[in-house]
Amino acid sequence: MTVTQIETTWQGVTLSELGQAARNHGMQLEGLRYDVTPLGMHYLVIHFDIPAADEASWTVQVDGLVDRPLTLSVDDLRSRPAVTRPVTMECAGNGRALMPPRAESQPWLLEAVGNSEWTGTALSPILEEAGLGAEAVALVFTGADHGIQGDVEQDYQWGFSLADIVRDDVLLAYELNGAPLPPQHGYPVRLLVPGWYGMCCVKWLRRITAVAEPFEGFQMGSYQLRQDPDGPGEYVTRQAVRALMVPPGFTDFPGRNRFLDAGPCRLIGRAWSGWGHIDRVEVGADGGWADAELGPKPDSPSSWRAWSFDWQAAPGEHELAVRATDESGNTQPLDPPWNYGGFMNNAVQRVRVLVR
Amino acid sequence: MTVTQIETTWQGVTLSELGQAARNHGMQLEGLRYDVTPLGMHYLVIHFDIPAADEASWTVQVDGLVDRPLTLSVDDLRSRPAVTRPVTMECAGNGRALMPPRAESQPWLLEAVGNSEWTGTALSPILEEAGLGAEAVALVFTGADHGIQGDVEQDYQWGFSLADIVRDDVLLAYELNGAPLPPQHGYPVRLLVPGWYGMCCVKWLRRITAVAEPFEGFQMGSYQLRQDPDGPGEYVTRQAVRALMVPPGFTDFPGRNRFLDAGPCRLIGRAWSGWGHIDRVEVGADGGWADAELGPKPDSPSSWRAWSFDWQAAPGEHELAVRATDESGNTQPLDPPWNYGGFMNNAVQRVRVLVR
Repeated sequence: MTVTQIETTWQGVTLSELGQAARNHGMQLEGLRYDVTPLGMHYLVIHFDIPAADEASWTVQVDGLVDRPLTLSVDDLRSRPAVTRPVTMECAGNGRALMPPRAESQPWLLEAVGNSEWTGTALSPILEEAGLGAEAVALVFTGADHGIQGDVEQDYQWGFSLADIVRDDVLLAYELNGAPLPPQHGYPVRLLVPGWYGMCCVKWLRRITAVAEPFEGFQMGSYQLRQDPDGPGEYVTRQAVRALMVPPGFTDFPGRNRFLDAGPCRLIGRAWSGWGHIDRVEVGADGGWADAELGPKPDSPSSWRAWSFDWQAAPGEHELAVRATDESGNTQPLDPPWNYGGFMNNAVQRVRVLVR
Repeated sequence: MTVTQIETTWQGVTLSELGQAARNHGMQLEGLRYDVTPLGMHYLVIHFDIPAADEASWTVQVDGLVDRPLTLSVDDLRSRPAVTRPVTMECAGNGRALMPPRAESQPWLLEAVGNSEWTGTALSPILEEAGLGAEAVALVFTGADHGIQGDVEQDYQWGFSLADIVRDDVLLAYELNGAPLPPQHGYPVRLLVPGWYGMCCVKWLRRITAVAEPFEGFQMGSYQLRQDPDGPGEYVTRQAVRALMVPPGFTDFPGRNRFLDAGPCRLIGRAWSGWGHIDRVEVGADGGWADAELGPKPDSPSSWRAWSFDWQAAPGEHELAVRATDESGNTQPLDPPWNYGGFMNNAVQRVRVLVR
């Protein structure tokens, strides 16, 4: 969809959607200029409320089908080997408001992403210490945020098959950019699953339970790619390949249209994928595409990769676009792939620019 | 207005308004439980874009009608006596989306507030060092954020009469909660005017200019209380008295309705005013009002004051409200006082609760 098509198909945001948008927030796209997203700029979604939490009395239970149930304090977690890594996190609903007709939820445009440095301890050794029972096939992570959705009162939960979660890079994280997690990001401890969408990185983590059946909790039923509300759908898991750019030039208020002086203009941004390293980024100007220059390959594919492109801005109106391809061969669609929940919209970003 | 009246008069949010709401954000009302607002929870509005800034090369010019123009580096500012103080900051547009019909801008509900600890150096000694000329009557503060509003290309600016700005408590701030200002809050230096609405606390501060006439820049023309778009209006200056509560119980998603078990329920929140200390907070339940208990009087009226109220929640649907009165005798209206720009809506907060 072009910018004009987005504008002409726009549906007004409801009071309930604004109730979400007023408290949750995206990363201002200027934030793409920082390799590590500064604290407070990283996107934020809180499903229910931010729980009151005290690190001193907080515990994480490891229970269910384990040989040795554990009760871990935050001090216990901090006394284990610490790992710090930049991880690109994105909301599965990023781009929802650009997929009409949209589900009533957080009405994201493009900004629900961030790449901060998370510090924590690896999950795997904790599972080894607890000893997963032979009949265990899945792990359920339960957070302290409590609420009602679809008439179901619940603590927020996400589940994984052992194959998906028993990985070296999964952390129980207690720091963000070198400081204790702020309350809104899961203080004092949250799950971090690099490469997957943010909804599975359970915040305010209280419990890890080994179970004998694949877990099908409420949230997992909600985060599926469906063509109708009741139909079956694939689970949302890994991040689809995506690139974003810092909109060039300057803006107006409140429209956020872009204005630029004619001449050379260096476009910059970041690209990421849950399916491997970024191999290629192309920039589209007025319909034609050309390769962008890629920044250094990050140590891990779970951290975004910088790109840049030197554009010659000629007077007039232009539409810029950016499209990434990952090493698995996935690339971004030109138009959003619609689904009922408004998930995984990785259609190319389009920015209209008026050059003077 | 009751909650039901708000719902039935709701007007959908435009794409331009959502473009603001996706990048700006309020303080989740759970944040009222913290005396000092954690980093990243404090409300945020960026007028144009977040400028790229480097502390090492940043300077603040002090010029215009001064005897000795100054060029201050951030190191210069840091080498001066430092002051740290909690300051309640609120957006003048807080509550705008609850004042139909509303101006197209950031569509705030209630959350555009925060009370963080700001560190900086006092403005007054810098002005003394520069030596204000006898003909100077106002100071103009210019930030680095650049954009277009109302067809006027501009750097963001705010101006003050000398009487309003030459005060002991006005700071050039470079830290927030003990860390360097994050980019989105004005890194590396911003103006801080305790008790006034946030729009005058110019971020990314580049220049302080003494002038011979009252300053009437574009933004000051915009932030006025008008009954029609062109009519004259009073300038928006000090924060109107206001209290907010943490909505009790738990929420649903995405509606953010509130649910609670019957029995004793401690309501908590904060209240503030730009016109002096908070003297009284009343809680309304189903139309009746009773006094809340006030927390300790803060050292300065520029920091919010805690309040609490023990409510007996009986089964059924209730509407709670909260109303503050300051030592100057100002109190909150029951209904929003409409104006064209959607400013200074300090009508009492109303929370509908379903007790089971």
